[in-house]
Amino acid sequence: MKNTQKPTTAPIHKYRPYHEQIRVDLPDRTWPDARITQAPRWCAVDLRDGNQALIDPMSPERKLVMFELLVQMGYKEIEVGFPSASQTDFDFVRKLIEENRIPDDVSIQVLTQAREHLIARTYESIAGAKRAIVHFYNSTSVLQREVVFRTDQQGIVDIALAGARLCRQYEKTVPETEVFYEYSPESYTGTELEFAVDICNQVLEILEPTPERKVVINLPATVEMATPNVYADSIEWMSRHLNHRENVLLSLHPHNDRGTAVAAAELGYMAGADRIEGCLFGNGERTGNVDLVALGINLLSQGIDPQIDFSDIDHVKRTVEYCNQLPVPERSPWAGDLVFTAFSGSHQDAIKKGFEAMAAKADAQGVTVDEIEWAVPYLPIDPKDLGRSYEAVIRVNSQSGKGGVAYLLKSDHALDLPRKLQIEFSGVVQAKTDAEGGEVTSDQIWDVFTDEYLPAPDVADRWGRFEVLGTRSSSDMTGDVELHVRLRDGDSIEDTTANGNGPIAAFLEIVRSRGIDISLYDYVEHTLSAGGDAQAAAYVELRVEGERLWGVGIDGDISTASLKAIISGVNRAIRTRENAGELAAV
Amino acid sequence: MKNTQKPTTAPIHKYRPYHEQIRVDLPDRTWPDARITQAPRWCAVDLRDGNQALIDPMSPERKLVMFELLVQMGYKEIEVGFPSASQTDFDFVRKLIEENRIPDDVSIQVLTQAREHLIARTYESIAGAKRAIVHFYNSTSVLQREVVFRTDQQGIVDIALAGARLCRQYEKTVPETEVFYEYSPESYTGTELEFAVDICNQVLEILEPTPERKVVINLPATVEMATPNVYADSIEWMSRHLNHRENVLLSLHPHNDRGTAVAAAELGYMAGADRIEGCLFGNGERTGNVDLVALGINLLSQGIDPQIDFSDIDHVKRTVEYCNQLPVPERSPWAGDLVFTAFSGSHQDAIKKGFEAMAAKADAQGVTVDEIEWAVPYLPIDPKDLGRSYEAVIRVNSQSGKGGVAYLLKSDHALDLPRKLQIEFSGVVQAKTDAEGGEVTSDQIWDVFTDEYLPAPDVADRWGRFEVLGTRSSSDMTGDVELHVRLRDGDSIEDTTANGNGPIAAFLEIVRSRGIDISLYDYVEHTLSAGGDAQAAAYVELRVEGERLWGVGIDGDISTASLKAIISGVNRAIRTRENAGELAAV
Repeated sequence: MKNTQKPTTAPIHKYRPYHEQIRVDLPDRTWPDARITQAPRWCAVDLRDGNQALIDPMSPERKLVMFELLVQMGYKEIEVGFPSASQTDFDFVRKLIEENRIPDDVSIQVLTQAREHLIARTYESIAGAKRAIVHFYNSTSVLQREVVFRTDQQGIVDIALAGARLCRQYEKTVPETEVFYEYSPESYTGTELEFAVDICNQVLEILEPTPERKVVINLPATVEMATPNVYADSIEWMSRHLNHRENVLLSLHPHNDRGTAVAAAELGYMAGADRIEGCLFGNGERTGNVDLVALGINLLSQGIDPQIDFSDIDHVKRTVEYCNQLPVPERSPWAGDLVFTAFSGSHQDAIKKGFEAMAAKADAQGVTVDEIEWAVPYLPIDPKDLGRSYEAVIRVNSQSGKGGVAYLLKSDHALDLPRKLQIEFSGVVQAKTDAEGGEVTSDQIWDVFTDEYLPAPDVADRWGRFEVLGTRSSSDMTGDVELHVRLRDGDSIEDTTANGNGPIAAFLEIVRSRGIDISLYDYVEHTLSAGGDAQAAAYVELRVEGERLWGVGIDGDISTASLKAIISGVNRAIRTRENAGELAAV
Repeated sequence: MKNTQKPTTAPIHKYRPYHEQIRVDLPDRTWPDARITQAPRWCAVDLRDGNQALIDPMSPERKLVMFELLVQMGYKEIEVGFPSASQTDFDFVRKLIEENRIPDDVSIQVLTQAREHLIARTYESIAGAKRAIVHFYNSTSVLQREVVFRTDQQGIVDIALAGARLCRQYEKTVPETEVFYEYSPESYTGTELEFAVDICNQVLEILEPTPERKVVINLPATVEMATPNVYADSIEWMSRHLNHRENVLLSLHPHNDRGTAVAAAELGYMAGADRIEGCLFGNGERTGNVDLVALGINLLSQGIDPQIDFSDIDHVKRTVEYCNQLPVPERSPWAGDLVFTAFSGSHQDAIKKGFEAMAAKADAQGVTVDEIEWAVPYLPIDPKDLGRSYEAVIRVNSQSGKGGVAYLLKSDHALDLPRKLQIEFSGVVQAKTDAEGGEVTSDQIWDVFTDEYLPAPDVADRWGRFEVLGTRSSSDMTGDVELHVRLRDGDSIEDTTANGNGPIAAFLEIVRSRGIDISLYDYVEHTLSAGGDAQAAAYVELRVEGERLWGVGIDGDISTASLKAIISGVNRAIRTRENAGELAAV
């Protein structure tokens, strides 16, 4: 089998391999034999490096939501902004301090360039904080020296040392604050190692690290320029050559230009680093910072506590999507909508057998499955440990192979189902068509969809226990909405009222007042294709009495569509329980 | 600075570290000193492993589009399906062969389990092909032996050897076809190395590899279970212990469960592999297969010809999104919408200086910038080499920090701009507000937007050269549309007609007939929020006379909105040229 690949016209003459730019020689490296046994110190930079890379930066309200998420997950070092470069960042840092929002065991970190007026402003921003990490940097790479700073190595060292001295000086302006330091030779991966270690060592002399006051030396892959083993070699080399090593926290800050940031962080950590900076789901400049979710859950998969709470990964994902206004991709490690699905029959069969074998083993030992080792093919982790579930997706082909279920709902009915609802609905279609066998038509799919999610009001036995007969809502413009709903509950019709920060929240209160345990997980809406009267579709993912499922509503009014969607989900949950013979009090 | 991180309640007792499951010992590894100097043999599995992981599998038409894309890019080994498991796949393979669609230097590859009726059917599918790789597999991991196959190592070997023998036997049924073999010990990463090499060596004895008829031994990370250096160690170990090594093509097939598939492929290749299987943009089961785009362009960034054409990466992306019906994420390496943008002022400044330095250097040498080494901070590659461009995004904050430009257009005007248009428009806002300085209000943003993209027809000097005054279209239901447009071109009003496979294609013909060089890059539409008369927004990315830019149209009719969007883009292009003093013939 001859190799028939051919040269292209790609301009390879424009690019020089990394090893011809920066020499990293470490034939006696030890990291490839190392094993990770505990979590590194994490530093979340979502509010700075992440925020800086958004088309629309976070509003103050979104920043606070992100900060509180990071705290709640367990991050103890949080870079909260670049206060000397942005008034919004400055105000946010002040807000955190003045409103006492920083827990005692959390350190905020602020970034600044090594220039006096910026350093002065940075210290202004942290006044009154109990503790803060002042993170100053200057760029050290061959390329930046040449084209940006037009200076030699000594010129770059002078910038760093002047910055370090100024930082020490301004310390005195914040006597109430315990100040720690982080120094980054920015564009480290484009810097000669000998120069990088020299500048760091000179900075350390000024910062005078002690066991009680260690200094963070952060070595960013500002641009990821080589395979991740080269970054690991360079980190091991630096770790050997840094002075005061015992009082230095060696920190990694990998970017993902080549798609290997997670590997760079892991191998760099094996090579002797103590600390990793990154963002949730890898937000950040260009291809992003290293993904803290992947790194953390990778540890869990090896039986190592990440010291970060990932037990409700969907909540984390939803919150980050809200803050960043960027979707988390479907195949994002451990968190994407598709990562715990199996499509192929042989995978599904093996997974089923894995679950059965675990149940049998637990039974034999007289324990629960949660007490024994996880061992299910194709599922490297128990989705339950992240608050997720495994989904077997059986794909239904339409006749003549014109596309699948989601495609036909979109092309024939303008319904653009959220990915997780697509997965749920494929199971419904499969269950309802199994008996008949073969392929299904677009009309059959639509019948199944309406029958399951959108039964007509006159089909009383399918529509279920609840029905909305009319609504009226009023707002006093303070953010509170009062909602009146004429509701059919079984055979009785009642006028109900509730308040909330929106009609959905208020309506959930009404449903709860009928004795139903309900919470909202996800909400998506869109309008249907134009032409005549516009219709809106609303999709809600709910937890009803412990069961997680979707509801759908369609109406000319988007607000009514959402209420219908909630009713659709609640009625479905009740139907399921009734079908399962649980004619409980609900 | 004390480490205040705290243990969580994550059930770490359920997970055993990889090294306690599978022993990989290679203290004398050589791969960390290796350097990649040439492209591996690529095998694209988008039509099999990728397609298998889609909620809606590709239709036959989409499959063909994907196949033709892969061929056009330069892939020479293409896994086209699992014909014995799916009638659609079987029919597709037959179509390729019977319609003579496989170029002479391309080998199709078909997957099959090692079972007789499936092997027989597989050979049926390839009859008449000039050349084909029969790829058979069985699962070999400790876990699958125990819970799925309930057999010992010998039982698993027997399955593989029976499969190999049957393959040899069925060869005779396709005398016109040159048959090559690939064997995969599936779930390799969960298999003891000694057993993996033993089963591969026994299979090789039956397949009898020769220099002219090498055999592919493919070692899949069916589930990615450890850091990528461990995979590389295992590959180097296998490479040393495989018999007939000189006649074996050692192949990698990494999945991305831990987010390190690209690294695993690169380190595994350094460890001695010859070949890599993956999918464009990392489609595939769960977190996906390794991303062939990242791997290929990583090579280019080191001055190595990937032997694959990535010179129009947007075309590749658009085509793959069409085939998979899944978006390529914004931060996908080398290809995402945000990877060649810079948001921070210091990055933008450094990039500007980098471009200037290159221009000066080229000037001094009397050559063009394309002849000298690429050296621009924060841009590891010249976006132009992928048909992209660098974008400096200056973010405009609205008053009181309530959100940025894209956010306000969405919340206040229901316009959901495509990411690349958001980037373009932020530049427009910046240019128009620079003079005034400070923050801008939502009303100002809307004024800038309408003035730039949606000038009112009565503002003749802004609306530009063209205006659509009326349209009529008819279709004979064969897929061809005849479009009549009453068009204002400057001061004259004319009735024009053209045909196309849709109104957009037909209208582009009309514009071309007016002497304008135009092509369409991207097209997105959505309806605006419901309530009263529904409106649709259409966004088009065009190339007009060599310039790439966006146009926007809003109308009650989606088809009219698209034509308006094209006019918007064309008029903008003409305005730009006129402003630049180029009152050319256009």
